[in-house]
Amino acid sequence: MISSGVSGLYDYGPPGMALEQNILDVWRKHFVFEENMYEIGTSVITPHEVLETSGHVAKFADWMCKDPSTGEIFRADHLIKEVLKDRLEKNEKARSACAETVQCPSGWNSGETSVILDETTIKQYEKIISQVNSIDSYDGKGLSELIEAYDIRNPATNVSVEAPVAFNLMFATQIGAAGNIAGYLRPETAQGQFLNFNKLLEFNNGKMPFASVTVGKSFRNEISPRSGLLRVREFTMAEIEHYFDPSNKDHKRFHEVQDVKIKFLTREMQASGNEAIEITVGESVFEGIIENTTLAYFLARIQMFLIKIGVDKNKLRFRQHMQNEMAHYASDCWDAELLTSYGWIECVGCADRAAYDLIVHSKKIKEKLVVRELLPKPMEIKEWVVNLDKKKIGPLFKKDLKFVEEAICNWNDEDKMKYRDQAVSESKITVQVADGRQFDVPSSLFTIEEVKKTINVREYVPNVIEPSFGIGRILYSLIEHSYWIRSDDIDRGVLSFLPIVAPVKCLLVPLSNNSMFDPIIDRLSSKLSRLGISYKVDDSSAAIGRRYSRNDELGIPFGITVDFQTVNDGSITLRERDTTKQIRASEEEILEVIKKLLEGIISWEDILKLFPVFNKQEINVLETKDFIENNS
Amino acid sequence: MISSGVSGLYDYGPPGMALEQNILDVWRKHFVFEENMYEIGTSVITPHEVLETSGHVAKFADWMCKDPSTGEIFRADHLIKEVLKDRLEKNEKARSACAETVQCPSGWNSGETSVILDETTIKQYEKIISQVNSIDSYDGKGLSELIEAYDIRNPATNVSVEAPVAFNLMFATQIGAAGNIAGYLRPETAQGQFLNFNKLLEFNNGKMPFASVTVGKSFRNEISPRSGLLRVREFTMAEIEHYFDPSNKDHKRFHEVQDVKIKFLTREMQASGNEAIEITVGESVFEGIIENTTLAYFLARIQMFLIKIGVDKNKLRFRQHMQNEMAHYASDCWDAELLTSYGWIECVGCADRAAYDLIVHSKKIKEKLVVRELLPKPMEIKEWVVNLDKKKIGPLFKKDLKFVEEAICNWNDEDKMKYRDQAVSESKITVQVADGRQFDVPSSLFTIEEVKKTINVREYVPNVIEPSFGIGRILYSLIEHSYWIRSDDIDRGVLSFLPIVAPVKCLLVPLSNNSMFDPIIDRLSSKLSRLGISYKVDDSSAAIGRRYSRNDELGIPFGITVDFQTVNDGSITLRERDTTKQIRASEEEILEVIKKLLEGIISWEDILKLFPVFNKQEINVLETKDFIENNS
Repeated sequence: MISSGVSGLYDYGPPGMALEQNILDVWRKHFVFEENMYEIGTSVITPHEVLETSGHVAKFADWMCKDPSTGEIFRADHLIKEVLKDRLEKNEKARSACAETVQCPSGWNSGETSVILDETTIKQYEKIISQVNSIDSYDGKGLSELIEAYDIRNPATNVSVEAPVAFNLMFATQIGAAGNIAGYLRPETAQGQFLNFNKLLEFNNGKMPFASVTVGKSFRNEISPRSGLLRVREFTMAEIEHYFDPSNKDHKRFHEVQDVKIKFLTREMQASGNEAIEITVGESVFEGIIENTTLAYFLARIQMFLIKIGVDKNKLRFRQHMQNEMAHYASDCWDAELLTSYGWIECVGCADRAAYDLIVHSKKIKEKLVVRELLPKPMEIKEWVVNLDKKKIGPLFKKDLKFVEEAICNWNDEDKMKYRDQAVSESKITVQVADGRQFDVPSSLFTIEEVKKTINVREYVPNVIEPSFGIGRILYSLIEHSYWIRSDDIDRGVLSFLPIVAPVKCLLVPLSNNSMFDPIIDRLSSKLSRLGISYKVDDSSAAIGRRYSRNDELGIPFGITVDFQTVNDGSITLRERDTTKQIRASEEEILEVIKKLLEGIISWEDILKLFPVFNKQEINVLETKDFIENNS
Repeated sequence: MISSGVSGLYDYGPPGMALEQNILDVWRKHFVFEENMYEIGTSVITPHEVLETSGHVAKFADWMCKDPSTGEIFRADHLIKEVLKDRLEKNEKARSACAETVQCPSGWNSGETSVILDETTIKQYEKIISQVNSIDSYDGKGLSELIEAYDIRNPATNVSVEAPVAFNLMFATQIGAAGNIAGYLRPETAQGQFLNFNKLLEFNNGKMPFASVTVGKSFRNEISPRSGLLRVREFTMAEIEHYFDPSNKDHKRFHEVQDVKIKFLTREMQASGNEAIEITVGESVFEGIIENTTLAYFLARIQMFLIKIGVDKNKLRFRQHMQNEMAHYASDCWDAELLTSYGWIECVGCADRAAYDLIVHSKKIKEKLVVRELLPKPMEIKEWVVNLDKKKIGPLFKKDLKFVEEAICNWNDEDKMKYRDQAVSESKITVQVADGRQFDVPSSLFTIEEVKKTINVREYVPNVIEPSFGIGRILYSLIEHSYWIRSDDIDRGVLSFLPIVAPVKCLLVPLSNNSMFDPIIDRLSSKLSRLGISYKVDDSSAAIGRRYSRNDELGIPFGITVDFQTVNDGSITLRERDTTKQIRASEEEILEVIKKLLEGIISWEDILKLFPVFNKQEINVLETKDFIENNS
């Protein structure tokens, strides 16, 4: 289903791909369509300048360290954690093996596997392991100190690793034949959206709030890809950038979701080791756990989406990032985490990026990225204004004039008041220009005064809430949440995908590979096709039970079986995957039932009330032979 | 709608993105769903090894040349063509300006713009321009000779360009922190599909034929991106790899398409300067224009898809590649070309890749990529077999034995017969091993004989037909084919997208920004939402005519208008984009009509027979005032 050559790069086979497509389809309906968001497609290859401005060139890095004997590279935090975990495990074994407690040194050399650790050391190890979880708890220096203090070595060679160095996680490339335009593969889709802000605002007739969306691949050159589909180098993201007025953070549709119950794990709960609490999003805003109804609205909508595709609600929580854990652009962040065999996994991040990105890009491109709102009535404001006596000041500074003007231009209100006072008390002011030189400007050559001004338009930089979905992680967690094994048979695994996301909706099986079934299977195939229902024919020679069970493992919710009775009276059977129960009816009735089941108009329980349960096909060989003889 | 920073990299705004999504949606239904193809998702970053094996590292290149004075880079074939075209244009101007014909040298220096070319030179130029169109007509040496012979210079600087060098079109990057795994961004999605061949064959229960599909981005580092969306560095492709038995090239569904008429432009027609001919695909196979019904089936299906999304059939033709024009992997290729303002543009390529890719990958990974088919009855075949006398030959060659054995293993039937003759005539044979050394093997130590063998399974490497769709080019051409200007008003452009691909299906406009319309617009919005119909509200203060026309430019096929009569009697009007005609009916009736129009159950002509045409809303200000007074 999913295969890989180089680590961290995966291929999705037909069922995995159909599952991803269906998840994205539900996602687009739930967000883009229902909320009237603007989906845009931006380029993967991103010029160096853009990612330098966004801070990714300087800050989007992990710490790596090298074993000098082999050249092998490790992600520093992962290595420290692994080595200490390994020591704790060996310690536990040694402890159970050894009856009496032996006093031991607080250090640990990889050779001395039988030395038993004291309680203080164990506590130290455990603390470090839990802290290194938060990726930014330690910087390079901190990690370097840990490596030295705890003598961290490459487990394979027992050689001490070198001090960690920062490794930028972006894939670099060159654009064009001249090779002079540096670029990266985007590490997130957000930047392409911010760059298009002005166009999108115009497309929305200048109105707020609105949201843009990008669905597509992003790339991170992970130092040590691991955990299957959970930490990969190339992944599909679906990112929303919701722009809103920071002076009015209320979401107008919040009332629709206020009663949704969510499990919240705040910073404080994590610090004090408490469990998550389950309350409504309405309560979460009232109690100040969530800062505003816009953020709360999106947390509720994220949960509704995850449950819609079949995520187990009991394995879902929202965890707030610790202060030192957040990305460089975030001022708050809540992760939707799903519980898997790898522990709680971040699958959706919901970050408050405030105005960070629009401000940095605006400065770089020297273009305003702001909203202009007509005020309900004109407003009078006071403003400090500097007037220069151009005729006299020009000849005084000559070619330096532009530097002086630029410096004055950059004054804020406070500066202006300070210089006005100076101009009054002394007969000149001293202006420092960009390159550090100072110029004296006589007080007679300028005025600084407060003037009244009437404005009709309010101008502001919108804030951004960013729900960001890791589709591969959601897909993987969903597979884990959907998988179970029939209690009566350990070999019979089932993937209980909801019909809405199931890669294939209907299985089509002839009882055997007798050619008299072929025209019936062909007819049913084209009927399902016309109804827009995806199907899979399994006409292999395996026993019917084996064919049912291997398609249960693919998560196909419904199965039609064609048997000898079909040839006789045209009736077919319909089997439901989870209950394995079957009903029997005419082709038309069964197709109608499948259509209604897939549309969610009727449930399988209801169907079982309307049709009697059909017991399994007789596959007695003698009977079959008789049948063929009588009918040929 | 579509924007760019660095050339060759584009962003799609909301309408462009929705159009692309809708085109892909139709594409998936038409191919993946209706033909039961297997869609897979493969990684963009592709290890060097894979693309070396496929031949892309060595052969996927264009020729570039540099202006040494500025460092500016040109694609050699483009530059030659441009310079010669420019000379011909200037010549034409000079000719019209000058009454008498002047004898001129056959060369041309950029400065001498007024010299008039003789007929021979003009013919030479024209021939070169038409040949350089076929990308592979000239290799580096050929291009270099042209540059010298015709004194090709950078038009901006008038400096002669350097001799062309090959430039590989793939974007390179490094995978992992150690930087020792080289990779490229895929230049096509095909390779990821070939690598998964064995898994896909297994997924299809070992049966043939079947097809895999990948939809996703590919990347080509074009030397000089140009022509807007037509030659870009990052583009969405939809590629089908259809695997079939080369000994049976018939497609079982060919009868469904055999009467489809297509415009064919064969190699011969191009060479002799003839026009394309329009015949049915049935005839094309019968007359040998198309080699087999599988290739013909896909050409017909490609055309059906293009027409389904709204491409103008009169601007569509299928052109066969010239022998020297094909990619290194193709043995035949037909392009679906669409006529645009840039000329005929290749939008879909349909290449016969034969067994090229599966054979090269199979050799590299040392794993068979073949189909095994149970024969209806066992078959007897004759085979040449070499038997070595292991006991005696081992001591003779010692550690060189493995090289000798390897050499013998690589013999084909012809070699075996040749060596058998040699073994009989001489008392030894001479075997050359991989590193060039030669070993004498005494005839007494081996036998070569023809043996009979019974086989139950036929093994073969399937052939591949590859329909490959450039979605951006199709999208661009579709926009051109759909655009027209109302004859009564030059400012009123219309994009007549078919409802199936239109980015937004329904426009919702209140007659004015009177707040009494708000609840009606809200109610209609949620009704359209529930029906799954995408809509756009235009409640800006522009005049209603202006709002209609700017949304006609976005290609929205239907528009609902809410006016004062709506407040009174609940009726709304429905306007069709192309005819601008309106009908008036109740909310329920209009929504039902839109649903049926979008599903293609009924046409607008039929609707106009069922409902009387409604004349435009009265927007007389006095009347409006009266209305408000009477109703408030």
